[in-house]
Amino acid sequence: MTRLYHFALSPFCRKVRLVLAEKKIDVELVDERYWEPSNEFLHRNPAAKVPVLRMDGLHLTESQAICEYIEETHPEPSLMPTDPKGRAEVRRLCFWFDDKFHHEVTANLVYERVNKKVMRGGYPDGKAVKTGAQKIKFHLDYMNWLLDHRRWLAGDRLTLADFTAAAHLSCLDYISDVDWNRSAQVKDWYAKIKSRPAFRSILADQIPGFIQPPHYANLDF
Amino acid sequence: MTRLYHFALSPFCRKVRLVLAEKKIDVELVDERYWEPSNEFLHRNPAAKVPVLRMDGLHLTESQAICEYIEETHPEPSLMPTDPKGRAEVRRLCFWFDDKFHHEVTANLVYERVNKKVMRGGYPDGKAVKTGAQKIKFHLDYMNWLLDHRRWLAGDRLTLADFTAAAHLSCLDYISDVDWNRSAQVKDWYAKIKSRPAFRSILADQIPGFIQPPHYANLDF
Repeated sequence: MTRLYHFALSPFCRKVRLVLAEKKIDVELVDERYWEPSNEFLHRNPAAKVPVLRMDGLHLTESQAICEYIEETHPEPSLMPTDPKGRAEVRRLCFWFDDKFHHEVTANLVYERVNKKVMRGGYPDGKAVKTGAQKIKFHLDYMNWLLDHRRWLAGDRLTLADFTAAAHLSCLDYISDVDWNRSAQVKDWYAKIKSRPAFRSILADQIPGFIQPPHYANLDF
Repeated sequence: MTRLYHFALSPFCRKVRLVLAEKKIDVELVDERYWEPSNEFLHRNPAAKVPVLRMDGLHLTESQAICEYIEETHPEPSLMPTDPKGRAEVRRLCFWFDDKFHHEVTANLVYERVNKKVMRGGYPDGKAVKTGAQKIKFHLDYMNWLLDHRRWLAGDRLTLADFTAAAHLSCLDYISDVDWNRSAQVKDWYAKIKSRPAFRSILADQIPGFIQPPHYANLDF
């Protein structure tokens, strides 16, 4: 059985969960307190991070490497274009969200508000939260600009770039940190992706100490 | 003509330069002061980062996406294994160095000591430099452990993982921040990779205000 060691509000874990679900690969989810790593966990991933995916007898780590592995071994339904140009654009956007968006927004909001509390790491840093709240506006505007030209973020088809972006936004939405009124196009895009069967498990997540806001799992948010 | 907008001591730019050189693709290097981005540069990459590669009529960004594009369009000599398991391991290590090593080591040493001065961003933060100097030991030990089992970092063959690691270490070596006495195996690995023709352009780099240390370009360091 495929097994994912994860943390529910980690965008990187959610990205892998979305890809597995889209490809209809059953997975057993194991909550991992990666900030208090056991020796066993460090053996699986010396980087002491989640996600770690146990699949085909391997322990796979790093969300992008994991998703590319799943794509190569389970090509249908495809989440990557076949041409190198299209693939480069999908990967560019994956890194946009996993690196730039992550550092400017997810880390400043989700990590400050949620992870710090869960890990007993103190109170949120007000300056970081303010920065995150400012920066997300630029990113929503950039997504709006992309969606002015394209049906999905990287082109005409749903790809790994959409799941990467949605993984981050869904974590922020759990703590009501996305202003969906900023862009009707981004809201429509998120409504489309949120209504996919692959999203169900993520909408059912419950983080102890953080009650799901009513709109979070609502498909007509 | 292929053109790379770059900064000489950026490990991400060096990674792309190494891959281009290994595949014998001629490139024109254009120094980019990405921290003072022009509108033209932001148009090429709204993320305001280097490297940006102009190739095949495209502006490609994000070093890993760029390297995968080059690998797909110029497969020889190959820098990726053909099997998904081997590819996952190469990508895992690429992200290890571009994410974990970068944040723990490169950012704390190269960015503090060099980039801050070049960008007139103030003095190095002593605490960050100390952290970087501590953390690099763990990473050299991890590389030593990998090289205990393997000829190259990801297996029996030279791959993108080796160039990614060497790109970071070469920047640190320019400011004499690598203790090559810590592991004979890592030193041997670096000597092997440094002696490749692909490395020549990097060994010839001169950063104004930072004189190359004598051992930097020496193949018998």
